[in-house]
Amino acid sequence: MIRLTVWNEYRHEKKNPKIAEIYPQGMHGAIASALAKDADLKIRTATLDEPEHGLTQEVVDATDVFIWWGHMHHQDVTDPIIERVHKRVVVGGAGIVVLHSGHFSRIFKRLMGTTCDLKWREANDREILWVTRPGHPIVAGLDDHFVLAAEEMYGEYFDVPEPETTFLISSFTGGEVFRSGCTWQRGAGKVVYFRPGHETYPTYHDKNVLKVIHNAVRWAAPNAGLKSPTFGNRKVGWIDQTK
Amino acid sequence: MIRLTVWNEYRHEKKNPKIAEIYPQGMHGAIASALAKDADLKIRTATLDEPEHGLTQEVVDATDVFIWWGHMHHQDVTDPIIERVHKRVVVGGAGIVVLHSGHFSRIFKRLMGTTCDLKWREANDREILWVTRPGHPIVAGLDDHFVLAAEEMYGEYFDVPEPETTFLISSFTGGEVFRSGCTWQRGAGKVVYFRPGHETYPTYHDKNVLKVIHNAVRWAAPNAGLKSPTFGNRKVGWIDQTK
Amino acid sequence: MIRLTVWNEYRHEKKNPKIAEIYPQGMHGAIASALAKDADLKIRTATLDEPEHGLTQEVVDATDVFIWWGHMHHQDVTDPIIERVHKRVVVGGAGIVVLHSGHFSRIFKRLMGTTCDLKWREANDREILWVTRPGHPIVAGLDDHFVLAAEEMYGEYFDVPEPETTFLISSFTGGEVFRSGCTWQRGAGKVVYFRPGHETYPTYHDKNVLKVIHNAVRWAAPNAGLKSPTFGNRKVGWIDQTK
Amino acid sequence: MIRLTVWNEYRHEKKNPKIAEIYPQGMHGAIASALAKDADLKIRTATLDEPEHGLTQEVVDATDVFIWWGHMHHQDVTDPIIERVHKRVVVGGAGIVVLHSGHFSRIFKRLMGTTCDLKWREANDREILWVTRPGHPIVAGLDDHFVLAAEEMYGEYFDVPEPETTFLISSFTGGEVFRSGCTWQRGAGKVVYFRPGHETYPTYHDKNVLKVIHNAVRWAAPNAGLKSPTFGNRKVGWIDQTK
Repeated sequence: MIRLTVWNEYRHEKKNPKIAEIYPQGMHGAIASALAKDADLKIRTATLDEPEHGLTQEVVDATDVFIWWGHMHHQDVTDPIIERVHKRVVVGGAGIVVLHSGHFSRIFKRLMGTTCDLKWREANDREILWVTRPGHPIVAGLDDHFVLAAEEMYGEYFDVPEPETTFLISSFTGGEVFRSGCTWQRGAGKVVYFRPGHETYPTYHDKNVLKVIHNAVRWAAPNAGLKSPTFGNRKVGWIDQTK
Repeated sequence: MIRLTVWNEYRHEKKNPKIAEIYPQGMHGAIASALAKDADLKIRTATLDEPEHGLTQEVVDATDVFIWWGHMHHQDVTDPIIERVHKRVVVGGAGIVVLHSGHFSRIFKRLMGTTCDLKWREANDREILWVTRPGHPIVAGLDDHFVLAAEEMYGEYFDVPEPETTFLISSFTGGEVFRSGCTWQRGAGKVVYFRPGHETYPTYHDKNVLKVIHNAVRWAAPNAGLKSPTFGNRKVGWIDQTK
Repeated sequence: MIRLTVWNEYRHEKKNPKIAEIYPQGMHGAIASALAKDADLKIRTATLDEPEHGLTQEVVDATDVFIWWGHMHHQDVTDPIIERVHKRVVVGGAGIVVLHSGHFSRIFKRLMGTTCDLKWREANDREILWVTRPGHPIVAGLDDHFVLAAEEMYGEYFDVPEPETTFLISSFTGGEVFRSGCTWQRGAGKVVYFRPGHETYPTYHDKNVLKVIHNAVRWAAPNAGLKSPTFGNRKVGWIDQTK
Repeated sequence: MIRLTVWNEYRHEKKNPKIAEIYPQGMHGAIASALAKDADLKIRTATLDEPEHGLTQEVVDATDVFIWWGHMHHQDVTDPIIERVHKRVVVGGAGIVVLHSGHFSRIFKRLMGTTCDLKWREANDREILWVTRPGHPIVAGLDDHFVLAAEEMYGEYFDVPEPETTFLISSFTGGEVFRSGCTWQRGAGKVVYFRPGHETYPTYHDKNVLKVIHNAVRWAAPNAGLKSPTFGNRKVGWIDQTK
């Protein structure tokens, strides 16, 4: 069983009626309810305006994979929560699937070590997402590409460390390209970035988008046999310890 | 279910009574029988001196993961079989777990594109294998290191492409080091190299070695939803096709 | 000084007057003469129909970097020459810059270990090449993107190993994308793939294309202090050798 | 010309007479004076107890490559200086060569996104450093290994992102191993980690160690033609901008 926590800033949906219409239960609600069909997932949601942003120590310790969507209020996520999630991923081996504007979240920048900046445009660009690593578990079930009729454009250069695997690359109406699906290992944990999901589009109702998110959650989950790494002063050498 | 084919050169065991004593059913037999406890694996074995080396088109097509052990007779594996296995991995998405002296096998060199050469010594070196990627599925269940009391030494430089993940690094009594556990993606398929297993030692009876092999087989298996990549002349652009 | 050998199939230019008009000295001639402004390069050319394809042992041994363009006649390049160039790169530490349809050359496939297949279309697509690794020496002097007014389309999935660095990604009029600039290390040598250059377009007269090729040659050149790796039986351990 | 700033914590040398004896001008002084033979380097030094740790905006802006040694007082390096150096590397394209206990410096952890933790022991272990990427510029001039008679031991697991290139792996008397030479790209800049250099040993007088540091500085230097990446709102698509 994988214990999934879908985290969302959840302010756009409360302020903007048009967004609320697309996502009456919030984007986290839409994603959580789509993934609920997988009985192997135990899903909860958490949002910015809950106490400790819904990410108490108890919740974080009981999370195998995080999904993270944020946009306008990254700075409102406090230091201790960032450190808590960071530690849970890097030391505890949890996975994290960062969505769309989450590229600028504090947790993603903390994990990447770069600015995570990019080019963008809100102009209803058509996005084509091409599979660039066919055998990867995260693209299981996809054709060689899929299309979103209208989305925000994100364009290169995307300032992240060279991905360990790039599984999707997008092109947009305007002629821009973007590495839309990428993975990295950080400590004992796994990180996925997946681009689509501007709040004004029904992207998280798209079956291919949901398939990628679902696959990403499964790929990023920790292994049953994970033992956290040991560090520090090893006073006696291996050889002498065993004499 | 994962359909596993354990391939072995299987000549040492027939010629050398000491080796036959360690591996009465051959190394392939020892590995196959250890992995048989996993009911999710459907295991067969194949060896060099069978017709088509036991790797008929039918067998290869029905294989999700290959294990490969060879040593003195790599050159006896014929071109068509190499191409068949290569295609099954790269296009078909099968996995391959290459063991020990299989580093010099024709299939591994074909997948790597390099000489795959290294330094070696048969002198009963003690080998310590240190985990260098704690959260990776292939090291699930291991402590931070494990030890083999006596093994052949393999030393760097190991002439392979920079691994995508290095999950184990060994040190030997003589002071040498070796990247003993590495992964690469090739096309739709996955490749694992795992160092231990000289024929004169009972290495494939060691529980940690068998754990790594078992984990590697599971990691390298293709995904249920794999669609083979499409190539070739795309006469009409995406945009015009959909107008 | 870098000793550069520009290799070209050089049959299109001899058979097709339109191509000859664009490249009166052949594509190799155009590239060689553009790069000749760098006094630090010692340039020669070699073509398929010369004896040993112009790649005698003497020439290969005296080459620090190869540029490789081939298209319709990859199969006419013989085994010994492929092995010679392969060894010069992997063991000797030479660089190789593979251009456009050279993706299907035998030397590139040998170095990659994959099919190197892709999608393609000849329809005068406009190609935009976006820089995806700004600080890399190969993109020095480029803006954040450059454009080719008309080119053959190459589309993903491009079946190569995950690049160590992806420095350019293209989009085409048809909506396709392609990893157009990639690097890999192979043994002691360096490999660059750079996409543009269909024979019916004046691509190798474009200043940005020539800049990338020039930068790639410099990046791929071996280091002054290169010592070829040592392999084989190390009879006595490091520790005992030095007692 | 490469403008190099050698940064050192420079407290051990002032407090401990034994260390002062080994490094009368500090470790930064020893490194700076060894590298001064390269007329293409313009070298300055900077230390923790200088105003702004010697890393004023002016100095940072005029630095192409940083060398960084710190140990007991990482926490005394203030936030604004860390951000300044980070920005100079990631956005400005400077290189940084992090030495030994600098693995725990705030700037290295900021660039890596992980804990950067490891195992260690101070017991005069003999360290053998094996070359694992023969053609890389940073190992130019080295044999296939070199030895340090006595050093602090660092052991795996070293909690850093999978290196883009691992050029040296060490073994120690105690049987431990360590990825002692690694590179990563971060934004437009380059990062090198190089392990040796505990303050109580004359490691920065060793000719092989100095050769690696020298090569690393040259490799990490920005390119003449670097253009900083552009980000932000791209209101009009590429296609429409050029109509």
